[in-house]
Amino acid sequence: MRNFEYYNPTRLVFGKGTIEKISELIPASSRVLLLYGGGSIKKNGVYDQAITALGAFHIDEFGGIEPNPQYDTCMKAVARIEECNSDFILAVGGGSVLDAAKFIAAAAKFEGDDAWDILSKWAPVNDAIPIGAILTLPATGSEMNAGSVISNENKGQKLFFGSDHVRPRFSILDPETTYSLPPIQTANGIVDAFIHTVEQYATYRASNPLQDRQAEAILRTLIEEGPKVLANPNDYEARANIMWCATNALNGWLSLGVPTDWAAHVIGHELTALYGVDHGTSLAIVEPGVWVHQRQRKREKLLQYGERVWDIGDGTEDERLDAAIEKTDSFFKSLGIGTRLSDHGITEDACALVAKRLADRDMKIGEHADLGEKEVTEILRLRL
Amino acid sequence: MRNFEYYNPTRLVFGKGTIEKISELIPASSRVLLLYGGGSIKKNGVYDQAITALGAFHIDEFGGIEPNPQYDTCMKAVARIEECNSDFILAVGGGSVLDAAKFIAAAAKFEGDDAWDILSKWAPVNDAIPIGAILTLPATGSEMNAGSVISNENKGQKLFFGSDHVRPRFSILDPETTYSLPPIQTANGIVDAFIHTVEQYATYRASNPLQDRQAEAILRTLIEEGPKVLANPNDYEARANIMWCATNALNGWLSLGVPTDWAAHVIGHELTALYGVDHGTSLAIVEPGVWVHQRQRKREKLLQYGERVWDIGDGTEDERLDAAIEKTDSFFKSLGIGTRLSDHGITEDACALVAKRLADRDMKIGEHADLGEKEVTEILRLRL
Repeated sequence: MRNFEYYNPTRLVFGKGTIEKISELIPASSRVLLLYGGGSIKKNGVYDQAITALGAFHIDEFGGIEPNPQYDTCMKAVARIEECNSDFILAVGGGSVLDAAKFIAAAAKFEGDDAWDILSKWAPVNDAIPIGAILTLPATGSEMNAGSVISNENKGQKLFFGSDHVRPRFSILDPETTYSLPPIQTANGIVDAFIHTVEQYATYRASNPLQDRQAEAILRTLIEEGPKVLANPNDYEARANIMWCATNALNGWLSLGVPTDWAAHVIGHELTALYGVDHGTSLAIVEPGVWVHQRQRKREKLLQYGERVWDIGDGTEDERLDAAIEKTDSFFKSLGIGTRLSDHGITEDACALVAKRLADRDMKIGEHADLGEKEVTEILRLRL
Repeated sequence: MRNFEYYNPTRLVFGKGTIEKISELIPASSRVLLLYGGGSIKKNGVYDQAITALGAFHIDEFGGIEPNPQYDTCMKAVARIEECNSDFILAVGGGSVLDAAKFIAAAAKFEGDDAWDILSKWAPVNDAIPIGAILTLPATGSEMNAGSVISNENKGQKLFFGSDHVRPRFSILDPETTYSLPPIQTANGIVDAFIHTVEQYATYRASNPLQDRQAEAILRTLIEEGPKVLANPNDYEARANIMWCATNALNGWLSLGVPTDWAAHVIGHELTALYGVDHGTSLAIVEPGVWVHQRQRKREKLLQYGERVWDIGDGTEDERLDAAIEKTDSFFKSLGIGTRLSDHGITEDACALVAKRLADRDMKIGEHADLGEKEVTEILRLRL
């Protein structure tokens, strides 16, 4: 096992009816900026629950955070914070609103000239406005981690930053808030949690038997519970299990002491930045390609994955390996996700273009940090 | 899934050579009380490593914390803290030293008349001296939780308290510090982690598929790695995996949203208080008795346990259930633990005596909170 550190002070409050607890969780006399997305929280009752629960707190609002939150929108929220003297951000929504809240919280306290440097140069984040969250879309794990991904359509970029200062002080996870999600968002969330898990698992053999089995635990649960929530969106237990899996998949625990990949994420982010592909869908497109391309180096872990997650016991090693990849692809498709570039109208020229963009940033990706322009092109060609 | 909250801000620092990081983890200009046990840390080099790493910090010492730390000893440490004006406790040792540190930290700031009330009446803990830990014995999980168990030989009691104020600020887990453990301590630690896990798992069916599989992940890893560390005490990877399992088994995560048992712990504490049985050993004695006695109510989970943890697939339900319990008992014995009362010179009169002591405290135990004097007597009679 590699050496590691872990620190995660986010307070989780999980279960039905828990939104009413926010008034105990936000420091008294805070001036709260309520941050949200396209307005679905006004239709599904979560907005009203939050306003009621906030009671006597001073509340200002900023709505309109997009999926793949935009830098320009975030900077408007920073201006709103200055205007309102907000000293607490309550993010109500999914990973996009959470990620936006983290960047806004850091940008509002940033001492440099250009807050974009936080993303493009990883300029130090020395302070941030405290954040709390009401999660309404299980997917990104942002509710219990220090990371954030922000897009900039003017630059055609989608970049990551992380800081302990932007960890949510608390996150409320009420599975009932997810009943009204459109099926494609539910499906993308399941895929996102699934790929987060395998990015920290399907690499090369190391001595991490517990971490391996903890990853397999999440994968099997997603495979069992995913179809249930799509068949019956109001199945509380299944919704709760999916929500819990998504938090477990990216709260930092799975990656402790182990090699990690993240190639599908890096490539997927480009597909989102260039073609607007949903984040979860972009991962479902790319990951099987990474696995086919890297099947020799990932061989041992993919065979273990096939055996333990999909009960694949028969056939030659190559047949089992093919079956493991095929079953993964089929699982994503069964959730209603198009797993090929062509399903989204993306043509062959995208393969070289994405690869070139990463090469221009000197990116060498994967668990060996050696997949470059040639390999990324090949991976995407496998997913036409 | 039941509603739950989780909050765990302990910083973990895991791996070889990490003791040197303590000087960055303790607040500058702290007056440190170094707390330890019977002196093994002076033989295995950990004491020297800690002193070197502490560098310029002001250090006072208090050694001699016993296994099953005694109230009287802890109160002497409280006096030492007052005498030395210590404002940080560095606990170096296993769960006993950690648990003692937690109680000492709370007792030193306790405003009531008698610090024993923290344990006997759960008197509120409103403040505590900050604690850090260097763990040298994987077992109790105390390095990443808020709980502590203290014994009082004058009263013949062994009692629990918990408070967020006594969570370690950091815990350093260097597997190399465990190389020199006597085999029985290693074995007791493995059993302790195993029973912590099953107490949060082998109850009744609820809708917690992820938590179930996370528990099974720990159990299978302990079964695989346990024999390795006993066969080769200097196997770094196996030591690291056992250490990591023990932290995972009782950092609070497994019990989120699920029913829990703890009957074996409550009964086992009495065996320790009355007869001085090692904590891990007491659990290995009692748990198979609880399972045999409660086999109907635990039936579904024990069958799942047998299938997923021990690969028991053949036979009738009753045969598989018997096999699951037998394999567990055999596993403990294979580690060198005597799993019967008679192995420790304890005779039949202990059964009624232990049961009476719990009845005198109006204890009704188990996941249904309904096992009383009659049932506890019967459980122990199964383990003569």
